[in-house]
Amino acid sequence: MKSFRKELWFTTSKRYEFVRITDAVQAIIDESGISEGLCLVNAMHITASVFINDNESGLHQDYMEWLEKIAPFSTRGYHHNVGEDNADAHLKRQVMGREVVVAITGGRLDFGPWEQIFYGEFDGRRRKRVLVKIIGE
Amino acid sequence: MKSFRKELWFTTSKRYEFVRITDAVQAIIDESGISEGLCLVNAMHITASVFINDNESGLHQDYMEWLEKIAPFSTRGYHHNVGEDNADAHLKRQVMGREVVVAITGGRLDFGPWEQIFYGEFDGRRRKRVLVKIIGE
Amino acid sequence: MKSFRKELWFTTSKRYEFVRITDAVQAIIDESGISEGLCLVNAMHITASVFINDNESGLHQDYMEWLEKIAPFSTRGYHHNVGEDNADAHLKRQVMGREVVVAITGGRLDFGPWEQIFYGEFDGRRRKRVLVKIIGE
Repeated sequence: MKSFRKELWFTTSKRYEFVRITDAVQAIIDESGISEGLCLVNAMHITASVFINDNESGLHQDYMEWLEKIAPFSTRGYHHNVGEDNADAHLKRQVMGREVVVAITGGRLDFGPWEQIFYGEFDGRRRKRVLVKIIGE
Repeated sequence: MKSFRKELWFTTSKRYEFVRITDAVQAIIDESGISEGLCLVNAMHITASVFINDNESGLHQDYMEWLEKIAPFSTRGYHHNVGEDNADAHLKRQVMGREVVVAITGGRLDFGPWEQIFYGEFDGRRRKRVLVKIIGE
Repeated sequence: MKSFRKELWFTTSKRYEFVRITDAVQAIIDESGISEGLCLVNAMHITASVFINDNESGLHQDYMEWLEKIAPFSTRGYHHNVGEDNADAHLKRQVMGREVVVAITGGRLDFGPWEQIFYGEFDGRRRKRVLVKIIGE
């Protein structure tokens, strides 16, 4: 069994932002030399997500508006916001998820036709990172 | 380390539907010959889910009604719905999840008493698939 | 490839409760002797969650109030509640998730600065358990 580990770093220009990372993850798989296995991709910060969905800007806008509706930003409505203002980011990240686990088959992300991996930032404008850990052969 | 891969295909008769796939996944584990490891089960489409919960029809109706409340169907209320009408399915899938990772112990799904795996379809009536990827020994 | 399996048992004193289990999971990794691999931590019951977020009491209160808002307790409002009163727990668990998959690097949980693992109980006051399954080398 082989294992491989690498980090991806982000500083988004906006507080809320989705960043497509499919190609960056595939490049790490290529570098690992692992052709059959599992690839874990997770946010290492608790106000950010990694998720898989469609690369379509209208849909991303829908996600952002929907998340704001079910987990709204507020400086006063949360217990967490004592010296913080990012409680909403913790809730939004929980809806979108911390991690994805992806199959590697023949050295490639084993994906359906529209699957793309995204980093979901809900409290951005500072350096944060994603972990990619691969095990296999 | 061994690895094994197989797909499950579905064409649901309804737009929204849950399909129990526990036995189908166990059959793939049997076929793999892997007795200790991890089993990834993921929707390969971005308007469908794989999740683990109870096999109880009242609860499934509760899930469907709840999803409709927090992520309602609408042909006009979403940016994604230009030539599409399935934006709600992308949101519903995000709540229910893309994938589950299940332990394999002694050749069996290592489950609690009520755990069952379901395929969750939110934009059905066409051919879609689930990936089962197993690694272990 | 090595694998290792252990259960954690809980009887919470409250119906809804979060329990930090990071150290208990690390102790199982230590016991396994596995230094590079993946660690699956999942609730074996369908009204409980395992999730990763911040160990901050105000935030935990925010999670509980938010979950009650989007998936409220009701003895009468759910189809599942025939002889049951825990339908809300099944919904809350779906938002918070069944499982986490965590990288093991150098024998340690490969975590960002604030990541902590929690058991999320939504129908407590009875014995329930979490599975820890590790594969690696």
